[in-house]
Amino acid sequence: MNGARSLIRTLTAHGVDTCFMNPGTSEMHFVAALDDEPGMHGVLALFEGVATGAADGYARVAGRPASTLLHLGPGLGNGLANLHNARRAHSPVVNIVGDHALSHRPYDAQLQSDIATVARNVSRFVRTTESTEQVGADARDTLAAAFGPPGAVATLILPADVSWSEGGVPVDASGGVGTGPGGGTAPDQDVLEAAAAALRSGERCAVFIGGRACSGPLLDAVADLATSTGAELLCETFPAKLERGAGRPPVERLGYLAEFAMMRLDGIRHLILLDGKSPVSFFAYPGKPSDLVPTGCTVHPVAGPGDDLPGAVDALADLVGATAGAAPRQQAERPAPATGALSAQTVCQTLGALLPEGAVVSDEGNTSGLFAPGATAGAPPHDWLCLTGGAIGQGLPVAVGAAVADRSRRVVALEADGSALYTIQAWWTMAREGLDVTTVILNNHSYAVLNMELDRVGAAEPGPRARDMLDLGRPDIGFVPLAQGLGLHAARAETTEQFADELGRALATPGPSVVEAVIPSLL
Amino acid sequence: MNGARSLIRTLTAHGVDTCFMNPGTSEMHFVAALDDEPGMHGVLALFEGVATGAADGYARVAGRPASTLLHLGPGLGNGLANLHNARRAHSPVVNIVGDHALSHRPYDAQLQSDIATVARNVSRFVRTTESTEQVGADARDTLAAAFGPPGAVATLILPADVSWSEGGVPVDASGGVGTGPGGGTAPDQDVLEAAAAALRSGERCAVFIGGRACSGPLLDAVADLATSTGAELLCETFPAKLERGAGRPPVERLGYLAEFAMMRLDGIRHLILLDGKSPVSFFAYPGKPSDLVPTGCTVHPVAGPGDDLPGAVDALADLVGATAGAAPRQQAERPAPATGALSAQTVCQTLGALLPEGAVVSDEGNTSGLFAPGATAGAPPHDWLCLTGGAIGQGLPVAVGAAVADRSRRVVALEADGSALYTIQAWWTMAREGLDVTTVILNNHSYAVLNMELDRVGAAEPGPRARDMLDLGRPDIGFVPLAQGLGLHAARAETTEQFADELGRALATPGPSVVEAVIPSLL
Repeated sequence: MNGARSLIRTLTAHGVDTCFMNPGTSEMHFVAALDDEPGMHGVLALFEGVATGAADGYARVAGRPASTLLHLGPGLGNGLANLHNARRAHSPVVNIVGDHALSHRPYDAQLQSDIATVARNVSRFVRTTESTEQVGADARDTLAAAFGPPGAVATLILPADVSWSEGGVPVDASGGVGTGPGGGTAPDQDVLEAAAAALRSGERCAVFIGGRACSGPLLDAVADLATSTGAELLCETFPAKLERGAGRPPVERLGYLAEFAMMRLDGIRHLILLDGKSPVSFFAYPGKPSDLVPTGCTVHPVAGPGDDLPGAVDALADLVGATAGAAPRQQAERPAPATGALSAQTVCQTLGALLPEGAVVSDEGNTSGLFAPGATAGAPPHDWLCLTGGAIGQGLPVAVGAAVADRSRRVVALEADGSALYTIQAWWTMAREGLDVTTVILNNHSYAVLNMELDRVGAAEPGPRARDMLDLGRPDIGFVPLAQGLGLHAARAETTEQFADELGRALATPGPSVVEAVIPSLL
Repeated sequence: MNGARSLIRTLTAHGVDTCFMNPGTSEMHFVAALDDEPGMHGVLALFEGVATGAADGYARVAGRPASTLLHLGPGLGNGLANLHNARRAHSPVVNIVGDHALSHRPYDAQLQSDIATVARNVSRFVRTTESTEQVGADARDTLAAAFGPPGAVATLILPADVSWSEGGVPVDASGGVGTGPGGGTAPDQDVLEAAAAALRSGERCAVFIGGRACSGPLLDAVADLATSTGAELLCETFPAKLERGAGRPPVERLGYLAEFAMMRLDGIRHLILLDGKSPVSFFAYPGKPSDLVPTGCTVHPVAGPGDDLPGAVDALADLVGATAGAAPRQQAERPAPATGALSAQTVCQTLGALLPEGAVVSDEGNTSGLFAPGATAGAPPHDWLCLTGGAIGQGLPVAVGAAVADRSRRVVALEADGSALYTIQAWWTMAREGLDVTTVILNNHSYAVLNMELDRVGAAEPGPRARDMLDLGRPDIGFVPLAQGLGLHAARAETTEQFADELGRALATPGPSVVEAVIPSLL
């Protein structure tokens, strides 16, 4: 078999059965092999950022990697922003980048560039596979790096002649890659004991979680740990996936604005990090600190993304004598149906009133989504996926991947107008795949967050030319025709009642659709 | 003044008065400074690939750089593909990438990444400006690198605190950067004499041009050189800008398909390179050579992109005694109006019949545009801009930049359906700026070139799952609603007569519009 087939066989043997792709000539053998390897499901994207963001969303929901298939350096470039977000999410992604044939390299043909260097910026692991015989083994190593811990983007660069030549040797899963929860570094005993002492000290403590601690049994365990010791439970600002809603432990996310985050953390003497990163400001601002840890607060880095988190949580629970089941559970409660003028707040209230059980929310609502977590806190259990790396254009691609990962769940993409336009091509893939994704466009006709940031960074009295660079209303963007052009049903709402009708209909209808909410900017 | 203002002042002092931007928080001081520095015109893009492609198109038409303004590593990533094309075009681009404040670097905040490493892949020059006092001088060095020769992407990384702090020192143009045609390396005398001897030898020779040799007096001179010596005049497959049409020297571009290129070059004993790169296959194919130079043919690299091309052409003309004005000129002739079923061919014939004098054609028609050069050869003088680096998604952004560079000219974007979707956001900038760009969408509902490549790379009997990955008709993409959603007038043509009507109307109407041509695939 050729190299492409041995690659696909190795991937599918390790449970990687989905490839989000935008291929070109150098990837044609991979594409051709799809007919011989029915275990691999190809999902076509019109733009590489959709493919990479979808792989991220897929990993967050499925808990295992998908692969991508990208065309040389420019294809990788187009996918880079969402690979950055995947890196920050610690999402496992097998990132396959086709390259020119090895024999073609000396000629510096038009599409040639240094793929490995660019890939390193987002990848924990980068390898160029140099022979067809080696493809399977290299793919296995790539898989191992992607699975982690920590979960990571792992990039395999596949030259066209390595792909098309005969002699491929697929590698099966007997090596154990991807078959278990993985280990990770054992917790440092001194750090554990210091953290336990802090939790028992009576001083004000916060258990600060992120990553794997925001889901499943680990979320229950960290909540029990906090409750048992009287510590506060806080979550990083943009977790990759937070399980929440009625019946789950309520978790407070630290605010985006540094000023609010500092107020929130003020007085805390110990931050116990469990897969959460010590809080820093998203951006720097003149005269304001970057490090948000209060003076006099000790940070206890108990377990990070590469560590044995279950082991660390267990050990800490033992040391402090935490009680299983101690944590409170979120009450089921939904906001009353909102009425009147449509606004960011009534959109979020309506979402809270209607969000279906088991939904996955891909949240790139930015300023307009500010009320969404509060309004949905008591909705039926659901998962919340955040903009982990700050590279906007994540929300719609992540929604694609989430929906492919679990076709039984409703995905809601809560999407700001400006952010939506970076990767709007995702809508076409939703239509093509018939995905149950409901996109809510929060259309305030501006890069509203930048209007706020323009003031916050201390730019004195922004003038009309500066404001104009943040204005998306000239011309007005028609999201309904955009969605229709990409094959989706779409509707526009200008009142809260219209929005509730359209959202209800969209959530009840199989397949993708778009509801545009025309709202004033909060800022 | 702050760093941002000193940067803008330095740019405008050197004739860089246009900035294609998609800024974020770390660039807000640059944005705020636009009100104080009215000499800089900001052009907003919804996606960074539009900004970088526009800077490329601007440079090709204006002959001087624009700047970009991108947001950290992910913004650069989104702009990378079109910077790759700009690099291959030797377009001067001042690529400004905002970064976190220097003081914020130790904290590895969400958006942090290694910008310089990614930038190096496309930039001849990369510098991070580390102090506000240095911004002007660093900008001057960036400008010098961009102007060349060779023209290049030069990247200046601007940390937010360097931008916002006071103490900026703008640099004026007295250093001579960008004020003249530039020098470049003098031609090697031995190479010159060998080339001259070849041209005088009676053996079959081809003058192989690219870059600067495809425009203006240099184009006339190389055509005279070829005619005077009986050499053939050939142009690289994808020149950055080829001046052509009635009254200009006719230039034959080497074909894209390696098989055809090899047939064309067969028998040529000497290739005289004048800013043209020795021809290589675009991609490698099993069992086929990458180097397209025929056996027994000597390549004479007289002048490349970094060399003194005018000097080299003059010297060669002197050595062979070339006659100024010897070259034939293209006769004025237009195709007869086409009728009947709409096809790639009748679209191109109609374009040939209607192309206005002074037009700029941004050609990303791919397979469907195959007939366009022939059909427009005798049209009134116009410029033809090609996909230099093979990274698709170039055509619409380059059209934006071309139209901003010269608002007196009509720009025609000849755009394949698949390629259009990578950077479709360009349409919004056309609408916002009221640019005279007519987009012709060649909608054949497929990545047609890949259907061909799938066969050419030797993939045996592609099956339905492979073909499905190249199919853009499931669902059908509605380019008319897409264009309307982004603020443009648009029409769809299904017959040649409709297309002629709509194209004529679009070309005669100020501002941007889109004509979608529904055509069968050639392949």
